[in-house]
Amino acid sequence: MGVLSQLSGVIAGIIGIIFTIFLTFIVMEINPGNEKMQKISKAIQVGARAFLFSEYKILYLIVFAFSLILGFSNSWIMALSFVFGATLSVLAGFFGMSIATRANTRTANEAQSSLARALKVAFNGGAVMGMTVTSLGLFGLGLTFFLTGGDTIVLSGYAMGASFVALFARVGGGIFTKAADVGADLVGKTEAGIPEDDPRNPATIADNVGDNVGDVAGMGADLYESYVGSIFSASVLGALMFDVKGAVFPFLIAAFGLISSIIGIIIVNISIKEKENLDPSKMLHLGTYAANVIELIIIFVLSKLILDTFQAALVITLGMIVGILIGSITEYYTAKKPIEKLASTATSGSAPLLINGMALGMESTAIPVILIGIATIVSFSLLGLFGIALAAVGMLSTLGITLAIDAYGPIADNAGGIAEMSGLDPKVRERTDLLDSVGNTTAAIGKGFAIGSATLTALALFASYIQVTGISMVDLNDPNVFVGALVGAMLPFLFSALTMKAVGDSANIMVNEVRRQFKVIPGLMEGKAEPDYAKCVEIATAGSLKKMTLPSLLAVFSPIIIYFLLGKVAVAGTLAGTTVAGVMLAIFMSNSGGAWDNAKKYIETGKYGGKGSMAHKASVIGDTVGDPFKDTAGPAINILIKLMSIVSIVVIPILMNLFE
Amino acid sequence: MGVLSQLSGVIAGIIGIIFTIFLTFIVMEINPGNEKMQKISKAIQVGARAFLFSEYKILYLIVFAFSLILGFSNSWIMALSFVFGATLSVLAGFFGMSIATRANTRTANEAQSSLARALKVAFNGGAVMGMTVTSLGLFGLGLTFFLTGGDTIVLSGYAMGASFVALFARVGGGIFTKAADVGADLVGKTEAGIPEDDPRNPATIADNVGDNVGDVAGMGADLYESYVGSIFSASVLGALMFDVKGAVFPFLIAAFGLISSIIGIIIVNISIKEKENLDPSKMLHLGTYAANVIELIIIFVLSKLILDTFQAALVITLGMIVGILIGSITEYYTAKKPIEKLASTATSGSAPLLINGMALGMESTAIPVILIGIATIVSFSLLGLFGIALAAVGMLSTLGITLAIDAYGPIADNAGGIAEMSGLDPKVRERTDLLDSVGNTTAAIGKGFAIGSATLTALALFASYIQVTGISMVDLNDPNVFVGALVGAMLPFLFSALTMKAVGDSANIMVNEVRRQFKVIPGLMEGKAEPDYAKCVEIATAGSLKKMTLPSLLAVFSPIIIYFLLGKVAVAGTLAGTTVAGVMLAIFMSNSGGAWDNAKKYIETGKYGGKGSMAHKASVIGDTVGDPFKDTAGPAINILIKLMSIVSIVVIPILMNLFE
Repeated sequence: MGVLSQLSGVIAGIIGIIFTIFLTFIVMEINPGNEKMQKISKAIQVGARAFLFSEYKILYLIVFAFSLILGFSNSWIMALSFVFGATLSVLAGFFGMSIATRANTRTANEAQSSLARALKVAFNGGAVMGMTVTSLGLFGLGLTFFLTGGDTIVLSGYAMGASFVALFARVGGGIFTKAADVGADLVGKTEAGIPEDDPRNPATIADNVGDNVGDVAGMGADLYESYVGSIFSASVLGALMFDVKGAVFPFLIAAFGLISSIIGIIIVNISIKEKENLDPSKMLHLGTYAANVIELIIIFVLSKLILDTFQAALVITLGMIVGILIGSITEYYTAKKPIEKLASTATSGSAPLLINGMALGMESTAIPVILIGIATIVSFSLLGLFGIALAAVGMLSTLGITLAIDAYGPIADNAGGIAEMSGLDPKVRERTDLLDSVGNTTAAIGKGFAIGSATLTALALFASYIQVTGISMVDLNDPNVFVGALVGAMLPFLFSALTMKAVGDSANIMVNEVRRQFKVIPGLMEGKAEPDYAKCVEIATAGSLKKMTLPSLLAVFSPIIIYFLLGKVAVAGTLAGTTVAGVMLAIFMSNSGGAWDNAKKYIETGKYGGKGSMAHKASVIGDTVGDPFKDTAGPAINILIKLMSIVSIVVIPILMNLFE
Repeated sequence: MGVLSQLSGVIAGIIGIIFTIFLTFIVMEINPGNEKMQKISKAIQVGARAFLFSEYKILYLIVFAFSLILGFSNSWIMALSFVFGATLSVLAGFFGMSIATRANTRTANEAQSSLARALKVAFNGGAVMGMTVTSLGLFGLGLTFFLTGGDTIVLSGYAMGASFVALFARVGGGIFTKAADVGADLVGKTEAGIPEDDPRNPATIADNVGDNVGDVAGMGADLYESYVGSIFSASVLGALMFDVKGAVFPFLIAAFGLISSIIGIIIVNISIKEKENLDPSKMLHLGTYAANVIELIIIFVLSKLILDTFQAALVITLGMIVGILIGSITEYYTAKKPIEKLASTATSGSAPLLINGMALGMESTAIPVILIGIATIVSFSLLGLFGIALAAVGMLSTLGITLAIDAYGPIADNAGGIAEMSGLDPKVRERTDLLDSVGNTTAAIGKGFAIGSATLTALALFASYIQVTGISMVDLNDPNVFVGALVGAMLPFLFSALTMKAVGDSANIMVNEVRRQFKVIPGLMEGKAEPDYAKCVEIATAGSLKKMTLPSLLAVFSPIIIYFLLGKVAVAGTLAGTTVAGVMLAIFMSNSGGAWDNAKKYIETGKYGGKGSMAHKASVIGDTVGDPFKDTAGPAINILIKLMSIVSIVVIPILMNLFE
């Protein structure tokens, strides 16, 4: 293999970074709007930054402690790559979110003149996130690969760094955003009777901050780890099968996927033109499909050239198809006919809505699991474990553009909030709402890729664990393995319980603070005095940071405890148990939550009595219950599964060296 | 082994049947109360019988079809034992419920004179259920064992018959009881504004019928299958380790457990004396503990005498301790401090109550799973797979008395309803309420035994499956096995979705029928005309029967489909996946449901504003959501797990013969 191939990740990463800087300039040169808008946007920026800094403080305490242990017990290079992987993730999340919190007010401002212009800013703001995450992820992992000659142990340190940050960011951000959301709604809307996003509500800035730290920074860190994890495991398994060619191949796929994403992003920008009845979903779809088609063509060429077989390309094609199908199923359950039926049950009250919504989420696990099963079996029969890992890489290779669309939604959402708070023309809000709703639908493909790739990557990491520990088999007929699997299956439930309780507790503290401010700040309700926004941000920050550590440490220490009690084979059982139960719980919670959210929105379009009706009240309860499901516990479980795997890959061999 | 030992199950079964007849006479000779009470009780009896007959019709259609397939493809003796196992379960459920529906009015009548007398009838009514289930179960399995010389294949047919009936009875009864409950409440209480159990409500008889077919007959069939399943798997695994001694040992344990239960029941009857401040829980506990202590002493003697080791006794002791601990944990989460905290969240509305209730249920999976893990590992290290199966038999050996206490609750509950409907002195209702609440607490031990034994039996059945199919290992590193496990983990979610949706749909039809009757029957609201109770019973019957078949067939056909697609080893993966995910889901759903129920009751004692307060309204929603959790989906999952295992044990070897 030429040096160029081995450096492909680094080169593509650098190209991506340059393109990101270019995109950033495009976004930043847009007029950020009037003083009021800028002030609101600034408050959101400051709050979000404050939260991230506090989060990083705790995170780095744990990261450094862990890296010291790694350094002393194993190797300092690995410890370094661990910190490196974590730091690039932190940078990606921080930078992406910084631009997102600046794109929001610009989107609102552009929406005053036209939908097309607003679409362009919001999309480019999201694209910065997408490109930052993929460029930094690929650059860092590629550099580590190149410098160490593809050393599995050092690479696993990098991947673990990514997983660490992802879990903290998802859990911390998830708790923050829902605590602020519930706190703002319960006191502001229900008790004080002021509208949503009203500047008199002390928690309103915290609420908008939450959208950014949860939906933008949290999601960024999440997908950074998926991306890195899939490339890492494919590279390790590829090396076993095709030697250095196999190890490099996933990097090449990712590198060209990054370039394809850039092309897709450019296509979206070119195709957005001023016209009547602009349909934003067309351009977003065009860009996504173009990127994937270009990537696929390149993959077929690479597959033949490098591995001398089309099977790798077939596996990746299959992965992409399955990802798109899972996305469609997810969309079907959370946005199509089932939602209309679900919304109709709200007319009998919240209990039927809740029962049916949970049934819907549970039912929605069936087809995705079968699709993943098919992808697994076929990939394995074509290319062994390497095939499974490659299918995941294929799904995530165009993450640059799919994440752009994911992150574009919250930007449009935030823009709507700013438009409302600063009293812009209602037409502006209409436009941002349209952008937001289009984003939700177009994001379905990205969601499908995320679910599918997470499960396949978990499978690949499971295989890597078996390989690094030298286990010959994981026999379920061995009671240690079965008990390991039982305990493993329990962990996602316990983890979800802890995160959901954290949301409840933090929301409670927020409620009390908002009540306090309404009482003690004179002139607040009359709009003469300003609320103490920062205090609410502080409270949400403190609450979520205090509560995020325990569930995160659960992921880190469970495999270690199982190792000492039941041995390394039982750890494999635990990983399998966590994976199979966790995947179901994650799909169930995400889709139930999404379904309740959309059932509420459907009723708000005037169905079943519309806003203010009994059905609407019931649907608000459903939506509130669904919030921690879909934005806190659900998505964090995917990271839990992978973090446990990667910790096992890193730590158990070290423990084996020390104790066996 | 002497013939007497080999016949121990049959002999104990016959003794149990004689004792049951004796108990039945004791219950039946009590005065059933005045005409009105008898009329109500009669209506419940007729409705319950009508439902069971319709259910059995469908059930036998499927049982006969399946037995024909078994007969033609394998052996007619096995087909016969399958029908035999199913029929004895049907008889046990039917007879036990018949007495329960007669004990209710007698309890109400006795409660007019004293608490002690009411306690005696209610307990003896429950004891009939407990003794019928254990006597018939042990007699039938023992007879099959004796006649076939312990043939595994034929015995597995018997166990499958038990599982078949259990799933249908649990699912069908579970849908019926909740459809009627919700239907009666939504229209009667909320729309028409008449009190609970009011005779003018057309669905009120259906509601009481539901308690009997769900909580009594459904639970009876459920525990019949647990009992039979545990003895069967222990016998099969015992034969592998100790030859005929090992095969007979579980029957001896069960036989002496049955005798111990009789002694316990007699002790309860003797210790109930007329006195001030009678505390019923003391007598119930006394009987339970006495039965278990006697049984344990016998087990230590038998263990040494027959197997020449105390290890079997140690394993069973461990099983009992773990069962009691799981029961205490369950009680802690659903009745102690966590409930007070949960109830407090209802003051902020139903959404926080629902979120926290779900978190509570998910958290409550942790300790039971760890306890089961300990029991598994220790039992295995002492006596191998036989040890695991024996621990389950130990927990269920005194099922006669623990089930008596389980079934006594619904009888006291029904008695309260009859007292209310026929306008007896409020003091009567107070007494029956006290009996009911004591029953709920004392039943905790039984619940712990049920959860613990179900998981251990599932493990033992898993091992039996591996043994009968001659698989050498079930390697999770084989993608077929992992995919099997993924699909297996999905099944309990899909199954729960189907059953919960069935409750919702059937409740809907019921609501419409009650509304219709209020409209078209003149003079109904004035009490001048009688509602058409039978029609409501019919509707709940039709609805639940139509909906019970699909989820039940899911359990039967999934392993077969997996076999054809992925092979016999993947089926083992599926069973493991279903077990580990299903156990968590079952504990979560049961405990969340129980917690919401008790949080509502706690608020109704006057806490947080008491009845009619905002918190109470929220808690009613929580309770309604929890109903299908704890009474339909939750308990049925345990049977799903075991039915899938037993179907695999029976069917896969047949398919292997045909196709391999």
